[in-house]
Amino acid sequence: MSKFWSDMAKRCAPYIPGEQINRANVIKLNTNENPYGPSPKVIQAIQKESEQALNLYPSPTADKLREDIAAFHSLSKENVFVGNGSDEVLAFSFMAFFDKNKTIRYPAISYSFYPVYAKLFDIPTEEIALQDNFTIPVEAFSQSEGGVIFPNPNAPTSIYMELDAVKKILDNNPDRIVIVDEAYIDFATESAVSLIHMYENLLVIQTMSKSRSLAGLRVGFALGHPDLIEGLTRIKDSMNSYTIDRLALVGAEAAIADVDYFNETTEKIIRTREWTIVEMEKRGFTVLPSQTNFIFATHPNQDAGELYAVLKEKDILIRYFKIPAIDNHIRITIGTDEQMRVFFKTLDTIL
Amino acid sequence: MSKFWSDMAKRCAPYIPGEQINRANVIKLNTNENPYGPSPKVIQAIQKESEQALNLYPSPTADKLREDIAAFHSLSKENVFVGNGSDEVLAFSFMAFFDKNKTIRYPAISYSFYPVYAKLFDIPTEEIALQDNFTIPVEAFSQSEGGVIFPNPNAPTSIYMELDAVKKILDNNPDRIVIVDEAYIDFATESAVSLIHMYENLLVIQTMSKSRSLAGLRVGFALGHPDLIEGLTRIKDSMNSYTIDRLALVGAEAAIADVDYFNETTEKIIRTREWTIVEMEKRGFTVLPSQTNFIFATHPNQDAGELYAVLKEKDILIRYFKIPAIDNHIRITIGTDEQMRVFFKTLDTIL
Repeated sequence: MSKFWSDMAKRCAPYIPGEQINRANVIKLNTNENPYGPSPKVIQAIQKESEQALNLYPSPTADKLREDIAAFHSLSKENVFVGNGSDEVLAFSFMAFFDKNKTIRYPAISYSFYPVYAKLFDIPTEEIALQDNFTIPVEAFSQSEGGVIFPNPNAPTSIYMELDAVKKILDNNPDRIVIVDEAYIDFATESAVSLIHMYENLLVIQTMSKSRSLAGLRVGFALGHPDLIEGLTRIKDSMNSYTIDRLALVGAEAAIADVDYFNETTEKIIRTREWTIVEMEKRGFTVLPSQTNFIFATHPNQDAGELYAVLKEKDILIRYFKIPAIDNHIRITIGTDEQMRVFFKTLDTIL
Repeated sequence: MSKFWSDMAKRCAPYIPGEQINRANVIKLNTNENPYGPSPKVIQAIQKESEQALNLYPSPTADKLREDIAAFHSLSKENVFVGNGSDEVLAFSFMAFFDKNKTIRYPAISYSFYPVYAKLFDIPTEEIALQDNFTIPVEAFSQSEGGVIFPNPNAPTSIYMELDAVKKILDNNPDRIVIVDEAYIDFATESAVSLIHMYENLLVIQTMSKSRSLAGLRVGFALGHPDLIEGLTRIKDSMNSYTIDRLALVGAEAAIADVDYFNETTEKIIRTREWTIVEMEKRGFTVLPSQTNFIFATHPNQDAGELYAVLKEKDILIRYFKIPAIDNHIRITIGTDEQMRVFFKTLDTIL
């Protein structure tokens, strides 16, 4: 700790992202990246743009990208905010909608960045325990003092909450914002985007990092009532006028445009997920019902932390959380069919 | 204003960046961009990287880029923080080093984003008036309560402060951070980077947007004692693990590596600036002594706001600030020789 640090720098408790190991042979099933590259049209668009005007600032309002995202979701540009990955969009949301003196609620087991933002901005929190089957207890989110945030599907549990339940949370918090963090929604049944026209207190956050294979490009977005988008824009324009560079803008635009590629790769991952679950169960694992590009599994006779460690030694990275309620589980990102076959081959040498 | 906005969203007063006009014929001398494109090696590096692993997250620690910047400045990686443009680095610096209850000081005429950050984070400020010749009054920055920040060279005045004066401010604030915002330093005499080993309270912030022709790529950095860099990293890792995408990382690395191109384009701009000043003075303008890639000028018989407006009608964009102390001045970015010739030709039709 330094005497030059602010109170904020002193009190914050930074997020620790999943390991990034650069050895060539490693099979990376630990950070929920897409095993397929982005659409070839994304690469073309980036290469073309790289020869244009990198010496000039990007559009501060990112109108084209916002229009494209809006069109994809049958919304208008005023319903769309774009940011440097959904993490930045989440951070700006904590700044724009949550307050120091009002307790917010989120599931005790969910994205571990939420408590980090809360601590940074000194926002009081109430962590709501999951039910025994790892689902989110909907009633416990009623009448929150400062607002609500939860991932849907939830992470790392992979469980999806039906829209009727989401509606109940929205109805029970009419004067508070409800943020639905849909990082994995494209691998699930249905987005809450369809509710935006009915609920002015709903903010949906999505990302290009997972289903659009663009974790390396840093583009996320929020969808909601224009007043909420304006709140986010005010924060962004008080931090950094241009958070998405020229290459990321055109890359994201091309990714949104290539619907066929998006559908094809998403369906491929869902198919791989389904047989992966069957194979896991064959080996005695219990796997939670996944609507994401990862699975969350536990084994009656295998120590989860040990499994993680032994797999790592054998160049397969999965994620293990040393958190009491889930420290007997492992989270495995769905890779290509080939990667999953190697995973099972290696797993079988351990079990 | 929305009932869902936080106090922060309500109180903030967002920054308004210079106009981005996309008509083809416009000569853009309004946002201090570099008229030359980036090094061809930057474009090559980006094109190569675009075919690699955009589906995987970038390095959260950006070690390679930090090492390259450190080597260029004869520092070590631990002295370097990188961010999404120097605006983000500045925002994180306000979060990491300034506090709610301690008044910070900056020049009343300087980068207009400083009061925006201060308002966002509720940091009390004292704006120090410039002297009659538009220089910064060094003594007025002694014994600040909460820290000091100023651009060097200052913007929009373009005036450089000698390192002896910078040292005096550092000496007179031993327990407070002094942030020297060097966005334009590569067009000036000497950076304060050489003082980092002597002053643990010095943070120098630079950008790739100006001298490295990469405004479109969003990369800025801070240089200072490892404790200060750690403070910034704590804030960043509490906001967004990966603020610089894969393409921007390799582009910035290539830009730092191509020293010849950097020297060549920087010298070209300085030469153009020098004859531009002579031409302005020939036409009756008073031009402040510039050590930047722009000039700040006033004319005894020409209204600055009108000059800006008439030039804009004729497809030449310059910057005009409607701020009492400087509302008789115009700021003109140094373009290519050809752009400046067109500028003068157009100017002569007005004068």
